[in-house]
Amino acid sequence: MSEVAITLPDGSVLSVEAGSTVEDVAYEIGPGLGKDTVAGVVDGELVDRNTPLHEDANLVIVTDQSDEYLRVLRHSAAHVFAQALQRLHPEAKLTIGPPTDDGFYYDVTDVDLDESDLEAIEAEMRDIVEADYDIVREERSREDAFESYADNEYKREILETEAAGEETVTFYKQDGWEDLCQGPHVDSTGEVGGFKLLDISAAYWRGDEENDTLTRVHGTAFPTEKDLEEYLERREEAKKRDHRKIGREMDLFSVPEHSPGCVHFHPNGMTIRRELEEYIRGKNTELGYEEVWTPELNKAELWKPTGHYENFTAQGEMFNWEQDDTEYGLKPMNCANHAYIFDRQKHSYRDLPIRFSEFGTCYRNEQSGELSGMLRVRGFTQDDGHAFVRPDQIRGEIVDALRVIEEIYGDVDLDVKYVLETQGDNAVGSDEIWAQATDALREALDSEGLDYETDHGEAAFYGPKIGINAVDALGREWTVGTVQLDFNIPERLDLTYTGEDNEEHRPVMIHRALLGSFERFMGVVIEHFDGKFPLWLAPEQVRVLPVSDENLGYAHRVKNALQERGVRATVEDRDQTVGRKIRGAHEDRLPYMLIVGDNEQEAGTVSVRDRQERETKDVDPETFYDHLEAERDEKRVAPDFLAD
Amino acid sequence: MSEVAITLPDGSVLSVEAGSTVEDVAYEIGPGLGKDTVAGVVDGELVDRNTPLHEDANLVIVTDQSDEYLRVLRHSAAHVFAQALQRLHPEAKLTIGPPTDDGFYYDVTDVDLDESDLEAIEAEMRDIVEADYDIVREERSREDAFESYADNEYKREILETEAAGEETVTFYKQDGWEDLCQGPHVDSTGEVGGFKLLDISAAYWRGDEENDTLTRVHGTAFPTEKDLEEYLERREEAKKRDHRKIGREMDLFSVPEHSPGCVHFHPNGMTIRRELEEYIRGKNTELGYEEVWTPELNKAELWKPTGHYENFTAQGEMFNWEQDDTEYGLKPMNCANHAYIFDRQKHSYRDLPIRFSEFGTCYRNEQSGELSGMLRVRGFTQDDGHAFVRPDQIRGEIVDALRVIEEIYGDVDLDVKYVLETQGDNAVGSDEIWAQATDALREALDSEGLDYETDHGEAAFYGPKIGINAVDALGREWTVGTVQLDFNIPERLDLTYTGEDNEEHRPVMIHRALLGSFERFMGVVIEHFDGKFPLWLAPEQVRVLPVSDENLGYAHRVKNALQERGVRATVEDRDQTVGRKIRGAHEDRLPYMLIVGDNEQEAGTVSVRDRQERETKDVDPETFYDHLEAERDEKRVAPDFLAD
Repeated sequence: MSEVAITLPDGSVLSVEAGSTVEDVAYEIGPGLGKDTVAGVVDGELVDRNTPLHEDANLVIVTDQSDEYLRVLRHSAAHVFAQALQRLHPEAKLTIGPPTDDGFYYDVTDVDLDESDLEAIEAEMRDIVEADYDIVREERSREDAFESYADNEYKREILETEAAGEETVTFYKQDGWEDLCQGPHVDSTGEVGGFKLLDISAAYWRGDEENDTLTRVHGTAFPTEKDLEEYLERREEAKKRDHRKIGREMDLFSVPEHSPGCVHFHPNGMTIRRELEEYIRGKNTELGYEEVWTPELNKAELWKPTGHYENFTAQGEMFNWEQDDTEYGLKPMNCANHAYIFDRQKHSYRDLPIRFSEFGTCYRNEQSGELSGMLRVRGFTQDDGHAFVRPDQIRGEIVDALRVIEEIYGDVDLDVKYVLETQGDNAVGSDEIWAQATDALREALDSEGLDYETDHGEAAFYGPKIGINAVDALGREWTVGTVQLDFNIPERLDLTYTGEDNEEHRPVMIHRALLGSFERFMGVVIEHFDGKFPLWLAPEQVRVLPVSDENLGYAHRVKNALQERGVRATVEDRDQTVGRKIRGAHEDRLPYMLIVGDNEQEAGTVSVRDRQERETKDVDPETFYDHLEAERDEKRVAPDFLAD
Repeated sequence: MSEVAITLPDGSVLSVEAGSTVEDVAYEIGPGLGKDTVAGVVDGELVDRNTPLHEDANLVIVTDQSDEYLRVLRHSAAHVFAQALQRLHPEAKLTIGPPTDDGFYYDVTDVDLDESDLEAIEAEMRDIVEADYDIVREERSREDAFESYADNEYKREILETEAAGEETVTFYKQDGWEDLCQGPHVDSTGEVGGFKLLDISAAYWRGDEENDTLTRVHGTAFPTEKDLEEYLERREEAKKRDHRKIGREMDLFSVPEHSPGCVHFHPNGMTIRRELEEYIRGKNTELGYEEVWTPELNKAELWKPTGHYENFTAQGEMFNWEQDDTEYGLKPMNCANHAYIFDRQKHSYRDLPIRFSEFGTCYRNEQSGELSGMLRVRGFTQDDGHAFVRPDQIRGEIVDALRVIEEIYGDVDLDVKYVLETQGDNAVGSDEIWAQATDALREALDSEGLDYETDHGEAAFYGPKIGINAVDALGREWTVGTVQLDFNIPERLDLTYTGEDNEEHRPVMIHRALLGSFERFMGVVIEHFDGKFPLWLAPEQVRVLPVSDENLGYAHRVKNALQERGVRATVEDRDQTVGRKIRGAHEDRLPYMLIVGDNEQEAGTVSVRDRQERETKDVDPETFYDHLEAERDEKRVAPDFLAD
């Protein structure tokens, strides 16, 4: 009997009988894992646990602790929804109902739904879940399927397009109800422990506004009610922390109609951006980067030799146009310009690494429907950097970058998850250099003692990569920075350095962004801190609140003393009660407020109140100023002058 | 007999008999001026001194001390050249021969010329000048003129286009030779005291590459030989200081083929840009500006209400295009985005001035033939600022700006000339506000004790302006910063603030750039300093030169001590003689080099050598470091540790 070689995420290879299922392999690894297995990822594709393996493959076992399991469960929840809908509204026509990152949706039509209908559907869903129907996969001929959807033109279109050329297609059935579906699904409806329908919106068939308008019901699901409750709480909290809302409240930024996806930084937001820029500039200097500046506008020909032009224009993702017989484009990345600067000089092996950094503004033509505040944008300024290194320098360069990344995310109190992406099928460059480079990345992660996941075969064609995901206060993950090796550009642009052997050699290019972009990073940080920034990032750091107009002069003297120390301080000089002034300062999320009345004025002291409503009187201003400087310069996360 | 009112540059009005000539008016003002008068500028147009004034007009008297006189003289020199050419090459056909800012040219055809022919033509010109022929203006019918140019299709084209509809045209004659020409000219060829033919190049008829190719002979002329000699010396010096040449030598920047007119700042150039940016940021803070950031990419509709779209696209000067059914543009200026930010909030009269600054990158589609290094560009980052003020705040705002401008240009050792541009015919806004605003500008200039010229009626339609011209080490003038009032945008965008009277009022907008743009300012400063920057701007400030490899360790310790003080210091560690190292440092225009050999190493001292080749031994490093910090922080123009 023939055997197949199954490669597991840790790189080990298991030889099993051809035709073994995912579950079989899991039991082979260990009975505990076998029991917990709910599905598998075979060569990147999510499949049922009883899917047979007939060929060599990469396999990831999915348990109910995996993110993948949540997607399977949510896909099944979409079916539960669809069945419940059709029980109540048999006329409803189903189109597609996939899982998403945080739930699922089903696009339906021929049924008139509004928010008030959701409760009844949820009740029906509860019945289906409690009945714990088996969910069964069934292969049927495509022809049969086509006939059974005689009155559903959407399913027929799917059968004619995605499924064209297939002999058979799969259905998933529960309690007699069925749906054309590739799966995978959980074993029975009872596994959908907690679920909720969230909202109804309109959607176009296939997302194309030329097509029919459908009704999208959006929901979420979890293994247990408790998981669901926690999610709903986080969701509520996330809404309160929406960076667009806080951005308005604190007047940080706007994204006007006249430039979709292009953030305008107002003075308060610009203060944060400037602090981040100076901070990263310091890190770049520490890392040996030399700053450059390159223009947004270039001829499109710049991106042709590197292959970027083809990639970006194929997806319509570039801003490019013809004017005066020249094709221009806005740079979608800075690497081509940096490679050009590198290539203007001859370099010896002794000169490497050569490192260029740029706070480079790039533009990408993202779909307008996808845009959202600072997190999904068209214009963004990367804290970009490119190092041109010898192969033997890769590891050291990565170690340094990772060390600084740890520092940075520590300073803003974000946890970091690392993901190592390794060589895929379409890789350019020799296997040797891929192996050497991937080892270097792995060794760097290991030597820094960092945990990381490996995404086998997921690297872009041009080199292996370490992705950096920040985990915020609500446990959400955000893709931010990146450390990416590139064998492609040096090859395509024929970049060289002269080796010790006097021959020309090919450098490796490292693309690296510590924050990612100011826009995205600020969006994340605003939500992470709920706008309650550490002192060093707070647009307004201290507000002086005079109790009465009599104290205005003293208040200004205090403010001036603060400003002389480089503190961003103001005086609240509006005609308000001191209670109102305090409330206003809390609303504006001030780290500190100094209340100065007659007593303080006479004694030359201040009363200090912080964002957490702690307060103390009779403070010697100098003591407070000294503390402020330290809190700011050490980038402490929360105001701690009044810490217990 | 009727009188006409002649307005002079100082605003005074003279009533003279209609038909009086420019020279008559000059004699009216004073016999000295009358004698010196060589021409006049009537309502902005340069005319002969014997031109009669039949209507009310603005008049500037042109003497041989005026820039305008040089243009007249050079125009005559072009005629002297053309006559000389036709004496030697009767077959040569003339087209046009105007004066330029620094000389004149004549485009000719049907004659085969190269540089070796110039000497003979100059000799012939000398004869014509020495003969001191009278230059005589003659009116002739256009028809006559047309016939006399039977074999010159270029002159005929001029007569059919520019002169179309005219009864008569003018010729200027000297010694029987004549040329179709509007003038004005000097009285006789003898006035062309010093002249030189500079080069020969190709040019298209009417500057259009679809047309015939002509031969352009370029020359210059001055009242005296001495003036000419001085100019040629300055020209030679200017060539040596060409910022493009120095930019290459010091690896400051490049303007690659792939982005015409868009400067790439290399690390060394970026250091200068960064220093300037931080410097101006400090000034902006001092002036109460709040920094913002707005995107390069916007929908074209942004610039329609302000009228900029129409102005810029009419001249093809904007980068704009249609993509996905939207017309986009790159911002040609930052004001619309700043006005948008201002307009997002309600403002009380107490909040004004509201001031936004931005290091804003703009793009304008300048003709590719016009581009040159950093001085004529398509992409540029302005140190822009917009203040929204009450009319009563204009003067104070301008006084503050002028004070800071004086400081800035003082710090880089450039003289400044101010030009006040006043209300013209097409002005928007009431005469009252123009008068109030112009008075405010004038009073601000006066109160700061600044000399300025007034260009009457030369202001843009939207408000009066103070132009700032920097005068460099070679006496050349460069338009750099600007302080411009704007009544138009507030009106067009309906910007308001609430006055003390609780009514809505219109603010005045002040556009203001202190340097102008980094690109242009750096281009000027590079040439002004010949790349020998003041310490604070020098990309590399100190280079440590070890005498032998034995001193390398000590050299690095010295460098590290410098870097700890924030000094940009390096070690020359290549295997070279110390003599070669010194020459290298001078070639790289290092402000200071520290030579460290065995003696220095043993004694813990350094030998200091500066850019002016002054040198001293046995210097205590701390003493030198302290000096360096002071020299840098006080922005002293030249290295002065070793000053006598």
